[in-house]
Amino acid sequence: MDNLLNSINSPEDLKKYSIADLYRLCGEIRKTIIKTVSHNGGHLASNLGVVELTVALHRVFNSQNDKIVWDVGHQSYTHKILTGRRDAISTIRTKGGLSGFPNRFESNYDCFTSGHSSTSISAALGIANAKALSGEQGNTIAVIGDGALTGGLAYEGLNNAGRFKKNFIVILNDNTMSISRNVGSIARYLAHIRTKPVYFKVKGNVENAVDKFPIAGKQIHHVLSKSKSALKQILYNSTIFDDMGFYYYGPFDGHDLEKMIDVFENVKNIDHPVLIHVLTCKGKGYKFAEQNPGAFHGISKFNIKTGKSLSTGENFSSVFGSNLCNLASSDKRICAVTAAMQMGTGLTSFARMFPNRFFDTGIAEEHAVTFAGGLAAGGMLPVCAIYSTFLQRGYDQIIHDAAIQRVKVTFAIDRAGIVGEDGETHQGIFDVAFLNTIPNITVYAPSYYDELYADFNDAIYNCKGVSAVRYPRGKQLFKPFDFESKYLYYDICGDNNAEICIVTYGRLFSFACKAFSELRDLGIRVKILKLNRIIPIDEDAVKIALNTKKVFFFEEGIQLGGVGEHFGYLLLKNNFRGKYFLRGITNFVPHATMLQSLHSLGLDDKGMVNMITTECKN
Amino acid sequence: MDNLLNSINSPEDLKKYSIADLYRLCGEIRKTIIKTVSHNGGHLASNLGVVELTVALHRVFNSQNDKIVWDVGHQSYTHKILTGRRDAISTIRTKGGLSGFPNRFESNYDCFTSGHSSTSISAALGIANAKALSGEQGNTIAVIGDGALTGGLAYEGLNNAGRFKKNFIVILNDNTMSISRNVGSIARYLAHIRTKPVYFKVKGNVENAVDKFPIAGKQIHHVLSKSKSALKQILYNSTIFDDMGFYYYGPFDGHDLEKMIDVFENVKNIDHPVLIHVLTCKGKGYKFAEQNPGAFHGISKFNIKTGKSLSTGENFSSVFGSNLCNLASSDKRICAVTAAMQMGTGLTSFARMFPNRFFDTGIAEEHAVTFAGGLAAGGMLPVCAIYSTFLQRGYDQIIHDAAIQRVKVTFAIDRAGIVGEDGETHQGIFDVAFLNTIPNITVYAPSYYDELYADFNDAIYNCKGVSAVRYPRGKQLFKPFDFESKYLYYDICGDNNAEICIVTYGRLFSFACKAFSELRDLGIRVKILKLNRIIPIDEDAVKIALNTKKVFFFEEGIQLGGVGEHFGYLLLKNNFRGKYFLRGITNFVPHATMLQSLHSLGLDDKGMVNMITTECKN
Repeated sequence: MDNLLNSINSPEDLKKYSIADLYRLCGEIRKTIIKTVSHNGGHLASNLGVVELTVALHRVFNSQNDKIVWDVGHQSYTHKILTGRRDAISTIRTKGGLSGFPNRFESNYDCFTSGHSSTSISAALGIANAKALSGEQGNTIAVIGDGALTGGLAYEGLNNAGRFKKNFIVILNDNTMSISRNVGSIARYLAHIRTKPVYFKVKGNVENAVDKFPIAGKQIHHVLSKSKSALKQILYNSTIFDDMGFYYYGPFDGHDLEKMIDVFENVKNIDHPVLIHVLTCKGKGYKFAEQNPGAFHGISKFNIKTGKSLSTGENFSSVFGSNLCNLASSDKRICAVTAAMQMGTGLTSFARMFPNRFFDTGIAEEHAVTFAGGLAAGGMLPVCAIYSTFLQRGYDQIIHDAAIQRVKVTFAIDRAGIVGEDGETHQGIFDVAFLNTIPNITVYAPSYYDELYADFNDAIYNCKGVSAVRYPRGKQLFKPFDFESKYLYYDICGDNNAEICIVTYGRLFSFACKAFSELRDLGIRVKILKLNRIIPIDEDAVKIALNTKKVFFFEEGIQLGGVGEHFGYLLLKNNFRGKYFLRGITNFVPHATMLQSLHSLGLDDKGMVNMITTECKN
Repeated sequence: MDNLLNSINSPEDLKKYSIADLYRLCGEIRKTIIKTVSHNGGHLASNLGVVELTVALHRVFNSQNDKIVWDVGHQSYTHKILTGRRDAISTIRTKGGLSGFPNRFESNYDCFTSGHSSTSISAALGIANAKALSGEQGNTIAVIGDGALTGGLAYEGLNNAGRFKKNFIVILNDNTMSISRNVGSIARYLAHIRTKPVYFKVKGNVENAVDKFPIAGKQIHHVLSKSKSALKQILYNSTIFDDMGFYYYGPFDGHDLEKMIDVFENVKNIDHPVLIHVLTCKGKGYKFAEQNPGAFHGISKFNIKTGKSLSTGENFSSVFGSNLCNLASSDKRICAVTAAMQMGTGLTSFARMFPNRFFDTGIAEEHAVTFAGGLAAGGMLPVCAIYSTFLQRGYDQIIHDAAIQRVKVTFAIDRAGIVGEDGETHQGIFDVAFLNTIPNITVYAPSYYDELYADFNDAIYNCKGVSAVRYPRGKQLFKPFDFESKYLYYDICGDNNAEICIVTYGRLFSFACKAFSELRDLGIRVKILKLNRIIPIDEDAVKIALNTKKVFFFEEGIQLGGVGEHFGYLLLKNNFRGKYFLRGITNFVPHATMLQSLHSLGLDDKGMVNMITTECKN
């Protein structure tokens, strides 16, 4: 049956089909996406929402010359399928396979790598200006969701794009959701546009009249402008996007292929920035996803028939969430702040139990941090739960609006370390190194759930200023039966008299324990120094390493500027005369499973054993 | 004559004066500010613009309970004068004196430390929520300029504040300028509001009608709401701020004290977020500043009678600017991007000579970086000129929209290192450490103008990916007559056979040279290793230090995660058996002159000599 899709080897092939055929094609694409995501995990609801939109874009535009920038990029599966990657789509998010996001090095059709939110307008505006300066032809199009519009970068992009003198197209894909339900005034404003028919009827009429004349886009706007009365002018100038310098068209049904194609044909020659407001249904065509788009935003493998995820149970996020609920029950100063990551960070129960103390800022990490700084200045104890990769956005705010204020803000850094299938834009590998640069900060790295409890308690109640607890995506790993944390700043285990010392923190401790056993079998005795508080490092922990001959530091994070380099400096400062070996992460890490990535990086037990046996032979 | 001002010891004292007296007071305050800034340097034009606004705020609000958050904070001099710091104002921006910005540790009236732009709404919203949660009374007020409104963080703040259910006041201080002329659609939009009398007359009439009834704020809005016809409703709902969930009032003349007081009295009891649009004249009351507010934004000491700055001539910024003009003349791919720092970064000539290739994004560092990434993806060679302290805002974008794209973006990092009088929020001490964490980046630190030329050439033409050239505020320092850079990745000078090695980079090299002479007089021989390319560090440079017995690394930047720690790691890795001493910056650095700060930090020649003589005695 999947005849049509098999005939699409490049977007050019779309041009030969009728609208009816293209609708059939959309059905085939949806099936492919549902099947692929059920096998590989990935972003489902967002992709199902933009099938018609993407088909229409590639039908109208020539996306080798015309550049499409996908915001976040988690909605690019149809784009990938249509641009020569149909057969490879089954490899998406797997080691060596397609990336789950647009990637400049995967295809010429991907003009800008994405992953983080709200970058598309700025990047596309740069590309459009480069085109203008070099005299290249072609449209530039940013496709951005209403969720991404809550990010300040998108606003900065709109503010700058509004004065561009040439064609520049922003497609606002409005599905009323970011990752979870969209929040803030902009969301309410979009709802207001959507549901105010009278308000928009005048515009609709003008457009309908225009639709009957098949004239070029530039003239369309001319007609629109000239035909408007004083009242119409007020109405015409009245969306926030018009205020930002765009010609606003919409809202349109994003699942109406014919309409989409019409609209794109009409706007592609307008010499002015244009914003097209498109309404789509997240999860469209798969009932479980339509009913619960939040759960089907980013999802692990699932059963197509039942819609049930194949991964369940406790993980670091859920443990954090229930711990915070416990703390908040007994301390009214505790607030939770997140940036559109309520579900992902395990805060759903908190939001239900303490609605007045729960703040979801939308995709707005900068605001989340500064707002938390304000809460703390007002005497609250805010815990700001943000994925490691997205906390990068708040670096300046952590310095300026938390650390310099000398207030108590605690960061719950979820997805710290290798995240696996989401790949290089999402790896949580920078947080330790960038937090390391901030004076007077305290950072904890629990290896197991029980340590997470202890660390948050210490962070919230015993730290003077800014603190952070970082923990990985998913579940805790292997824990040796004889290991019990003392809940101090470090733990020591293995062979007490060993002259070889492994130093590590967080999840890697599990691999170090395995490496310990494997090395013992090879006749090599090691001790393991597990750092629990990684910034600052306890002096006694350094002394333990000082008394050995070979120190191996393994770090699941960027090496330059990380804790491993600092540990080395502390050894050197204390006249260490042994050998120091450091293995951290020195480059961006592509998608693969977490275990595959740690293996490639030499950070699993095998990698540790290899490094230690090699260096101990000499 | 300055009788009135002398009687103001706290804002409470304002309540006893008539409007006429308060106008006289405003004149006295202006004189004080002009005199102070002419002596100490500082922000002049912004402060002169808000004298009446500030007097009115303190007349109406009780700013021990009511919290005023000043955005950026460079307009807080009147606030400081009125809140018990009248006599101390002469010490502003000097070592041990008042800070040039609000500071939580200087006064209870300063509820949030500021310095960076666009934070006020987010911070104030946090404070307001903390008040609401803890049942404290009082208003919370954010005062933000139209320039700061171009920053995405301000938009994120508005988007979140719009749904607050209680009184929350944002005062938009619209002076049509950020640092230089304001840019972007929001600026145009504000101009549109200002100049569209018909559009706003309806609102004005409603307000005038309301003004005649001395009723409480809540009721005022009730009256406004009930009295509006269908047309009025459309008009009423039509500013961008109403769209964001605020009640918009304005525009009002910000120099009309009586009006300001009236407006504040009227809005302080409205149980809803309110935005008050106030028009002010930057530089008001000092003709040179009114005529040229850009030049009088942040200014060094000047002659009051002539308006002439007492500091002139070449500096790193101007050298950068003329160098970039030269490069752009012969290479059409070169573009300049800055974020409201055209004058400060020396790009005024570039903007005039190459208007199509010059992009001022407004106060929007995130957009500037992502936009530059887009330009580069389109084949241009963007040079993004941003002060070190503000580039912190672009950390995620440098990773995500430049480094991961593997495009050539060059950062011109101005004001790198100690900036002096602007103090802790503005110190350029983080850039090296945070850039250090980004894979595949190249960073140069020229000590002198001639090296800046060479470094930019290398960065733009010989680097593969993201690169940066960082240089300090102001002029190049002392250069030994016999020193000539070889324009390689490092230079070596001093005593070749010395067993003591000073390693440093950038401006500190001048102090190292002085230390060299002073140490020679004390009979201590040293060599100096000057790093020109600080990331990555050249292997041969490490070898030079390896062959000495004592290595002293001096770093004008944050120590944790900086180049000095990395250098130590490289020594350790190469089995260095000597002693390593590292001195960088380990805490936030308060305001003082640059030389005073470097002295306090032990980073001038005296500090170097002290450290070396102490450590070499043992």
